Amino acid sequence: MTITHPPKPGTALWLYAHPRRGSLNDHLFRAGTEALSARYEVLTSDLHAQEFDPVLSNRDLGIPADTPGNIVELAGEAYSRGRLPADVREEQAKLAAAELLIVQFPLWWYGPPAILKGWFDRVLTNGFAYGDLDPELGVPRRYGDGGLIGRRALIVVTAGEDARSIGPRGISGDLESLLFPLVHGTLWYVGIETLDLHVVYDADGLEPAGVDLEAQRLRDRLRTIDTEPVRRFRRLRDGDYQETRALRGDLLPGRTDLGIHLADHG
Amino acid sequence: MTITHPPKPGTALWLYAHPRRGSLNDHLFRAGTEALSARYEVLTSDLHAQEFDPVLSNRDLGIPADTPGNIVELAGEAYSRGRLPADVREEQAKLAAAELLIVQFPLWWYGPPAILKGWFDRVLTNGFAYGDLDPELGVPRRYGDGGLIGRRALIVVTAGEDARSIGPRGISGDLESLLFPLVHGTLWYVGIETLDLHVVYDADGLEPAGVDLEAQRLRDRLRTIDTEPVRRFRRLRDGDYQETRALRGDLLPGRTDLGIHLADHG
Repeated sequence: MTITHPPKPGTALWLYAHPRRGSLNDHLFRAGTEALSARYEVLTSDLHAQEFDPVLSNRDLGIPADTPGNIVELAGEAYSRGRLPADVREEQAKLAAAELLIVQFPLWWYGPPAILKGWFDRVLTNGFAYGDLDPELGVPRRYGDGGLIGRRALIVVTAGEDARSIGPRGISGDLESLLFPLVHGTLWYVGIETLDLHVVYDADGLEPAGVDLEAQRLRDRLRTIDTEPVRRFRRLRDGDYQETRALRGDLLPGRTDLGIHLADHG
Repeated sequence: MTITHPPKPGTALWLYAHPRRGSLNDHLFRAGTEALSARYEVLTSDLHAQEFDPVLSNRDLGIPADTPGNIVELAGEAYSRGRLPADVREEQAKLAAAELLIVQFPLWWYGPPAILKGWFDRVLTNGFAYGDLDPELGVPRRYGDGGLIGRRALIVVTAGEDARSIGPRGISGDLESLLFPLVHGTLWYVGIETLDLHVVYDADGLEPAGVDLEAQRLRDRLRTIDTEPVRRFRRLRDGDYQETRALRGDLLPGRTDLGIHLADHG
C-alpha cells in the first residue's frame, strides 16, 4: 500500500487565495477553472470566499486545550481519531480526491498569503499527508513517499516585481528558491510532484488588455499540462542523503544552492 | 528624513506565534521576555493570545469592497489616511516604538505559521514600512532604506528536524535559505537588520531538562545581543544590482545561491 489516498481520475482541485473580486487573480481563477473544466471535474477551494481560518490552534485537536503534547503530533492524532474540525476534513477530502492540484496566489512578502500558508498548516496533518516509517512500505512517508503521492501540482503565482528582480541572482532572490518551502518542503514532502512555475510578472500594473493576454496564456498552459514533465527532486529513500541527511559530498560537490535537490541534476 | 519612525531607545517588541501553553515555545517566550526586561521595556505581540487575524482582506482597506485597485496599494492608502483597522494600527505603533525586534515561532512547513505570516501581510503596509522613490532621500524606501531602518531583529525559531537536515546541503534545504523570504525579503526590505538566527533543533523531543537548557541558552544569547554584529545585505542603492536588478556579473561570478546577497561576501 504505497498510496494512502488514491486520487479520483479526472478530478482536479483549484486552491485559490486572493481576496479581491475583479483583480487579476480573480480573472485568472475564473478563466483557469473554466478552461480546466473541459477535461476535469474541478473542485475549488476559494479560501477568502470560504472565509477559511488559517490558524492552527487548539481548536483543531478535539481535546482540552491543556492536554500536554506537541500540536503537530496532536493534530495527527485528531486526524486518526476522526476528530479534526469539519472545515479541515472537507479540505482533506477534496485534496484526497484530486489527481491534479492548482495552487494560485499573489506573492506577498515573497511567499504565499497567510490564508494559504495556514491551509497547509491545518490540512496537511501527520497521518494524512505524511508519516514516520511505514512498516509495509519500508520507508518514511515523506519526500517523495508522502501520503499524497500520485498527484501533480501547478503553481500559478502573480508577482509585482519584474522577471529580473526575482530571477537568477535577482535582488529579491530567485523565485525558485523563494518558493522552495512550498514546492519542495511542502508539496514534495507529502509526495506531490510539481510542474514548472506559472508566473505572471509585473502583475500590479497590467492594463485590461494585459489581463486578457495573461488569462489566455494560462488557458494555453492548462491545455497541455497533462503531458508536461514534472520536476523530480531526490527521494529520501534513494541514498543521496545517506546517513547524514545532507547531500552526499560526491554529488555536485561545492554547490550550496537549493537546486542541488533536483533529481535530474546528477 | 531618512527614518520615518524613529524608535524609542530601550524599547523592544517580542513578536510571538505559538498556540500552546506549556510548550517549549511558551517556556522560551516567558524566559526570554523576562530576561530581556532587565534592560528593555518589552512590548509583546502574543498573536495567539491576542487572537490576531492574519488575513489581509477588504476589511483592512476602510473602503467599499468593490472599489477597484490593487489590495497592497489600497492598504497603503488606508495607512496614509488613518483608515487601517485598530488592530493593525496597534501593531504598527508597537513596531514603530521598538529598536529591537524578537520574532519567535516554530518552523511549520519550512516557514512561519500563518498567524505570523499574516502579521507581516497586514502590518507592513506601503507608506509605513516601505515606499517608492523618496524625494528627500533620493532612493526607493526598500532594501536597507525601508521605513523601519534603525532597528535590529533576532529570529528565534524551533525546528523539529536536526541540524543536518536543515543545514548546508541538508535534505530540507538549509535554514538560511528557507528563511530568506523573512530575513531578507521582509525584514531587510523594510530596513531591519538581523542577527544570526537563534535555532533550537530537534525541538519536538526535548525532555524538561532540555527545555531548561534551551531557556538558559536563550537568556545567555539575549544578554549580549546589544553588542552582536548584524548581518548586512547589499543595499539597492549601492549599485551592486545596477540597471538589471540582478547582481552584477563581476560580483561572485557563477554563484546562484542566496548567500550572494550578503554585503560582506565581496
